[in-house]
Parts: sequence; structure tokens; C-alpha cells
Amino acid sequence: MDRKMAVVLQEMTDAQRERIRAAAKGYGFEIRFLNAPWEDLPYLNEAEVLFGHLPPVAKTAKKLKWICTPFAGVDQFLAPDAFANPETLLTNSSGAYGVTIAEHTVMMLLDILRRQPDYRRIVAAHEWRRDLTVRSIRDSRITLLGTGDIGQETAKRLRAFDPESLTGVNRSGRDPGGFDRILTGENWEAALPETDVLVISLPGTKEAFHMVGEKQLALLPDGAVIINVGRGSVIDQEALFRELEDGRLYAGLDVFEKEPLGKDDPAWETPNLLITPHTAGNMTLAHTVEKTVEQFLEDLDNYCAGKPLKHLVDRTRGY
Amino acid sequence: MDRKMAVVLQEMTDAQRERIRAAAKGYGFEIRFLNAPWEDLPYLNEAEVLFGHLPPVAKTAKKLKWICTPFAGVDQFLAPDAFANPETLLTNSSGAYGVTIAEHTVMMLLDILRRQPDYRRIVAAHEWRRDLTVRSIRDSRITLLGTGDIGQETAKRLRAFDPESLTGVNRSGRDPGGFDRILTGENWEAALPETDVLVISLPGTKEAFHMVGEKQLALLPDGAVIINVGRGSVIDQEALFRELEDGRLYAGLDVFEKEPLGKDDPAWETPNLLITPHTAGNMTLAHTVEKTVEQFLEDLDNYCAGKPLKHLVDRTRGY
Repeated sequence: MDRKMAVVLQEMTDAQRERIRAAAKGYGFEIRFLNAPWEDLPYLNEAEVLFGHLPPVAKTAKKLKWICTPFAGVDQFLAPDAFANPETLLTNSSGAYGVTIAEHTVMMLLDILRRQPDYRRIVAAHEWRRDLTVRSIRDSRITLLGTGDIGQETAKRLRAFDPESLTGVNRSGRDPGGFDRILTGENWEAALPETDVLVISLPGTKEAFHMVGEKQLALLPDGAVIINVGRGSVIDQEALFRELEDGRLYAGLDVFEKEPLGKDDPAWETPNLLITPHTAGNMTLAHTVEKTVEQFLEDLDNYCAGKPLKHLVDRTRGY
Repeated sequence: MDRKMAVVLQEMTDAQRERIRAAAKGYGFEIRFLNAPWEDLPYLNEAEVLFGHLPPVAKTAKKLKWICTPFAGVDQFLAPDAFANPETLLTNSSGAYGVTIAEHTVMMLLDILRRQPDYRRIVAAHEWRRDLTVRSIRDSRITLLGTGDIGQETAKRLRAFDPESLTGVNRSGRDPGGFDRILTGENWEAALPETDVLVISLPGTKEAFHMVGEKQLALLPDGAVIINVGRGSVIDQEALFRELEDGRLYAGLDVFEKEPLGKDDPAWETPNLLITPHTAGNMTLAHTVEKTVEQFLEDLDNYCAGKPLKHLVDRTRGY
């Protein structure tokens, strides 16, 4: 067969593999499943369609027409030389991560509001102490930077906790549903003095770079909590860490300006900071893998029917 | 004035104190606010109405007609000699704790499902590792033992995470709203083999004593998670700890058979166990105090109008 497809996605179940194999065969593709790109680079470099963990291959695969990344973030595909074939279509798996990232966000937020970092020190010392003042989602005015799949799934869950308000921030100013009001990049800073919780799910675009900097942080009230499950570059990390060291703000960060954090990174010991090592949205939840496969198969149908791809990334926008 | 009222509730704001003072005055009561009972025991022993942290005083206050406890649990008032005046009416503050306990429950559940105890060890070692398999509320079949205020507020929040199912267990078999089905004490064990998450919010009654014992635990599937924010006596703790030591089940416990846990209690170091020191529902959330005061004032109106008290406890049932 002339048309070659390759899938590099270890996390799949056998059943998922079989569904992809059957679909590929039906469309006349030869298909190979690899655990890592280096297992068969010659084949990958001949492929027309790639699905999986494959950023470096895109640079060398000259016949590549479509690559689907199992991640939502496409930072690695934005360089001008990211594709050997500049016509290559790029789709991502945004839409597969809303559930897991929303659960992570609510978890981190409750952990901070309910003083669990302090309580864990008490419990580690085998002490029975229960008098620390806690806060609740119910009493919080929440602003969500980003109202895509992640922002919407998060807002839906937060709503059930009866927060004082849910403000969304996006480019269009349109409410995708579930927010009390929507602000845009132009006017969103007006919300900061009345924001108890700031949830960031923005992608790592140039436009969003350091959108939350010293000036924006200073507008937040004392004790405000920032949760970042988008990209580290959205926050001016140095400015944030100064506020955390001062004890004025709290943060739960799943993403950082430079990842991975090194052994001696000062972040690990920064006060008022809850760290998770970019685990909010990786593929360790079965639902995420299933959704990723479903979305790929949906676009495989589109691709083979010559229809527009549903999960197409605009590389100039960066998402 | 002849009619004496006393309030022993440090957690109140000045505004709340003033509202109570005004209401009491309006009904012709003399009122004193104390930080602890021993500040004025002679006055307390003459009181007709008591509101606050006062269990021992009930035993000696012969003129006491109504006592309102700021807690939901009334374990301390169930002994036959708990009241000097056996006619004393007892109201509790059930209804004030749903919000804070529901937030605590969701927090503990997400913490366990998303492997945070393991991830915290990774983060404490300054390691960047992100490959642990996690689980979600979305994929969980959840059974709630207890469908009162706490169970309902918890179910409402869990529903927003799209769980596979929400089963409630109560005495009446009636759905207070928000559950997929309701079982009773008679038939609830049938749900256990299909329960990924068991949330317990039952009071410490005789009827509920060790309702979750060796036999019930054995019916749960491998990996099931138990969250107890009710009373420790509902679980046969020894049987549960064996399952946790075996690594078969997980638990998040806010309550224990014997509290406080002593410094050397083996619970502190039991594997697969997340401990919080009875902090799910104490008065450290401002909303809880406000609701408690509101409910007391509501029943003060009822009491003075000779109407039935809304938050009356049935001491024979124990809640």
C-alpha cells in the first residue's frame, strides 16, 4: 500500500488500537503502531498521517499531510521549521483534557482554600489541631482566564459549589455558557480587584505571554489564589514568586516558565505555593486517552472524505 | 429580668452578636456572651436558653428549657443524665455544615483519586515525574450513606463532575432530590460490589454503629475509596485498617472511633489512608457560623411564639 499511517501512543488499550487499525484499513492505509519514534524512523518519514507523540518527526517527514498530537498544547509545532512539508495539517486533542484538568483545578483550589498544606504539616507531626480558618469556593469571586474546553468544564464544576461569581475572559467576548459575565483581553483587568480566585487555562501563545504580570498581580486582593493549568508563560513567574514570598497571594501551579523544574529550583520551597508536576492534563486518565482516540477517528473520517478537520490548529494563533 | 439567656460561641462576629442581643432583648431576655462556660457558671446554671459550646452545663442547669448546640452531632447529649431538666428541648445546627463538609469531601476524594499522596512524595523529593495513573469522579459509581444536608450538598457538587452514578442510602427510601436511586438500610449492601466511592455522612447513632464492617468492606471492589465525614463509629475501624494495610482499599477519614488520635496512634502511618483531624465540618468557615446563628434566631422566634422548633433533635433517634 502506498498510503502510510503511524501511531505512537503507548497509553492506548488494545481495543483502541484495533479501532484505529480497522478504520485505517478501511481507508486503504498501511498502519504501524510504535512505542517510540526511534523504533522505525524510516517508516515514519514516509508517512502521510501521524497520530501520537511525534514532534521531531514532523521536521523530517516530507510526505506528511496530517499530524494529530494527543496533547492540547502545540507549542512544539509553532517554530517556522516545525514541518518538513509546510502544507502539513496539524490537529490537536484539545477537548480531551477538560475533564481531567477541571478535576485537578477544583482539587488544587480546595486544597489551598481549606489550608491543607498547613494541615498536612500538622498531620505529619501527629498533631490533632483543627482551628485554622478555612475559606470556601462558595464565598469566592472566580475569574477564569480562558473559556475553552478546560475553562468550560471547570466553570461547570465550580458552579455546583455556588460561588459568588464566575467571570470568564476570552478574545471574542462571547459566553460559551456557564459564566456570569465575559470580559475580553481589553477590559479583563477591571475584574482583578474583585477576584478571589484566578484560574488560568490559556495556551502558551505570544499574545498571552506574561498576561499576568506584576501590575495584574498587584490588582488582586490580599489572599487571592491563582491556579495555573494552562501554560507557565502566561504568568510572570518572578513577579508571582515575589508575591508568594511576601505571603500576600497563594498559588497552585501545574505549569512553569521552564519545565521540568530542576532539583534545586527555588520553586519547590517557595511558600504559599502548591506544586504539581504538570499532571493536570497528561494522559494518565483513561477517559483522556479514549477521547483523544475518538477525536482522531472523527477527523480521520473528515480527512478521508476531504472535509475540513474539526480539531485543526491555527498555527498563527497557536491553538 | 427573670428570663436568662447565654451564648458561648467565640467564633461569632460582632455583628452576629448584636443581632442575637437585639432579638433576645426584644423577647425580654437578659443575655450574656461568654467565651467559655467557666467564665460565669452561676449565670449559666440559672439560664432558660443556652446557645453554644455547653454540653456539661446542661447537666446542672435546672431551669434550662432549650439548648441549641452549634454542632450537627449531638453524641454528647444522648446519655440519660445529659440534662438536669429532662424536659429540656435540644436543637442542633445540622444544615449549617453541608457546604463546608461537601467541599471537604470532594477535596479528599479528588486527592485520593488523583494520587496526590504519591505525588506529594515525588514533589517533596524535588522530582519531576508525571506518569502515575489517576482516576476521576467522572468514571466513578458513588454511594452516599446518608442523604441529609451533608449528603445532598455533596451529591449536588459530585453531580457536576458527571459521575457514572449517585446512589443514596437512607432510612425512608425517599429521594430528597439529586440521586439516581435510593436504597435503605435493608438493601443497601447490594450496591457495594458496584461502588467505587463510598461517602459516609451518617451521625453516630446506635443503628449506624459499625454499619460498614468487615463483611461490607469485603463486598467493595478492589481500589474502592471510602470517605468518612460523619462519625467514626459507623466504620469498624480495625476491619478497614486491615484492608488499607493490604492495599486493597483507600480511605479519606476525617473522623475516627476514638478522637483525638494520640501521638502514637497507628492510624497516622497507615498506608492508603488520608487523614484530616475532624476539620471537615468545624466552625472555621465563616459561612458555617453565619448559618448557625441564622438557624438559632429562626428557632428563637419559634420558641418565643410557642411554635415547634425547626431544628429539634429526637434524642431517641440521635439526630
